[in-house]
Amino acid sequence: MSELRKDPIGGRWVVFSSGHNKGPGDFPSTLKERSGEPYDRSCPFCRGNEHYTDHEIFRIPDPAGWLVRCVPNHFPALAVENVLQKKGDGIYDCMAGVGAHEIIIDTPNHSQVMAALSHHHFQQVLNTYRQRILDLSRDLRLQYALIFKNHGRNAGQMLPHSHSQLIALPFIPRRVQSEIDATARYLQFKDRYLFDDIMQQELTDGSRVFDQTANFVALCPYAPRFPFEVWILPKVHNPRFETLDDAGTAELAGLFRATLQRINRALNFPAYNLMLHNAPMHLPPRMDEWVASYHWHFELIPKITRMAGFELGSGCYINPTLPEQAAAFLRGIDPEE
Amino acid sequence: MSELRKDPIGGRWVVFSSGHNKGPGDFPSTLKERSGEPYDRSCPFCRGNEHYTDHEIFRIPDPAGWLVRCVPNHFPALAVENVLQKKGDGIYDCMAGVGAHEIIIDTPNHSQVMAALSHHHFQQVLNTYRQRILDLSRDLRLQYALIFKNHGRNAGQMLPHSHSQLIALPFIPRRVQSEIDATARYLQFKDRYLFDDIMQQELTDGSRVFDQTANFVALCPYAPRFPFEVWILPKVHNPRFETLDDAGTAELAGLFRATLQRINRALNFPAYNLMLHNAPMHLPPRMDEWVASYHWHFELIPKITRMAGFELGSGCYINPTLPEQAAAFLRGIDPEE
Repeated sequence: MSELRKDPIGGRWVVFSSGHNKGPGDFPSTLKERSGEPYDRSCPFCRGNEHYTDHEIFRIPDPAGWLVRCVPNHFPALAVENVLQKKGDGIYDCMAGVGAHEIIIDTPNHSQVMAALSHHHFQQVLNTYRQRILDLSRDLRLQYALIFKNHGRNAGQMLPHSHSQLIALPFIPRRVQSEIDATARYLQFKDRYLFDDIMQQELTDGSRVFDQTANFVALCPYAPRFPFEVWILPKVHNPRFETLDDAGTAELAGLFRATLQRINRALNFPAYNLMLHNAPMHLPPRMDEWVASYHWHFELIPKITRMAGFELGSGCYINPTLPEQAAAFLRGIDPEE
Repeated sequence: MSELRKDPIGGRWVVFSSGHNKGPGDFPSTLKERSGEPYDRSCPFCRGNEHYTDHEIFRIPDPAGWLVRCVPNHFPALAVENVLQKKGDGIYDCMAGVGAHEIIIDTPNHSQVMAALSHHHFQQVLNTYRQRILDLSRDLRLQYALIFKNHGRNAGQMLPHSHSQLIALPFIPRRVQSEIDATARYLQFKDRYLFDDIMQQELTDGSRVFDQTANFVALCPYAPRFPFEVWILPKVHNPRFETLDDAGTAELAGLFRATLQRINRALNFPAYNLMLHNAPMHLPPRMDEWVASYHWHFELIPKITRMAGFELGSGCYINPTLPEQAAAFLRGIDPEE
């Protein structure tokens, strides 16, 4: 018999289809580990080709030059040079595309994927995420910075060299807004933080947790939209990723890297999307409590199923894999193997 | 300079990226017109293979047997046999998967696509949609019936024989709920129907309309999520598709068929998803005004771009094609050519 579960944060029902539950072997592998050359002369992201990119925004230096580098997207969806002007268009609303669109080059090595970075190098990618959010927070026109990564062609990666992206927006995006609304409503109703209650239930129950450190946990959420969807969260309530100190990013990097390695071994190096959900950068006055109820988290979605008419039309999802099954499988994998 | 537009019904901002606006020739063709055999002996949907399917729910008869046929999905996501039971799971909520999952076989011909149906046959597919909604409305446990179609492998079509699907749900899906909320808020604020104001502006302005009949219009919406996204709507306010009479479905069939033919010629026979958004079947008491503000419409989404980390993470969209450009192109195509 199939089961429907409600995601308390996203507020959507997910249908877990019965009869043909799918384990990791039931999905086609979409991407093999790359083992190509470390340098491609035509790649704008390779060490030695820095002149191909527009000006450099930020770098993590390294004796050989740099470990991680941030540059503007050459085809930006939004630009900080624009003037923020909201206006009506009859009954409709529009505004100029003010914002930022940055590329975070994870590594100077053309063929190195994120899961293959050293622990130190992985931490520096997270430190770059943190630094870019802190810098962009100073622009009061920008309300939200979304950091994401498309890994593999099936997940929308356009250039093969491993990179993350940051898009800063002059509004709070719809999905984050509805997550914050859910946590704020829960706070009003229960006088507790929703993410705290989730964390307590998940850590006590344990069936959806597959890895953890002292301060962070990696789990399959209760009502995941996609098979083997994974979240990485801090155990102690914290709305803002950018408040992590270096000890925090070092600890998180270890758990994060191991999680990517588990996913790679479970699903034979799938394409994936990775997103950081974080509190908005600026808030209307007297909204402190509202945003305090939020809790940053990474969402990792292996690209092994397809969104089609039902998902596009309903905003709900049919998922053939229960999160307890996915977590049990991921728990059984040795990431360092 | 890029532009951001807000979809007044979906409530989301869409980024129209500047610099490299894309016309129809800029997207790879994803599907060629099928010209295979009319009968496949292993296909459960072909005329002559009716014994492969579970019991027949409905058919439109024809001298040769049937034109359109509705059968249960052999692997249903939901089943009417289940008992509706909502329950808690710690802080979470779940329920049994009560609902219906039906397949509407558009044609007995294995290789005939929807755009190639005769006008009369196309009308019978719409009549089948109407009949299935009317029948399922009698089950008071079901709140919503979503009719959709995945055309082409890229759009999630699993069996090659042309078919639509109906999933009836024991809840109002998130996307429809948020559309209804938007129309209800507009009614409260303006004392007018949002869709009426949209219709008036679109028909006066005309830049996003590419075809119309006396009672229906085909247009590219103001803030489409995807390039060449198309909506087909009634001009006069109407929340419920199933209230159409035969004259209505006949008129709609002509516009709908021409729209599919325009899309096929513009984008070289793309894969697409088609969804019917309709008012919920049952409502809590005193909610009549709430649902009266809604307006049924078909959404047609050619599968020529990919959702990736930004879209999954933000619930917002980056679209390289302005709807005025798409509409101008579609307007210039002769569907009967």
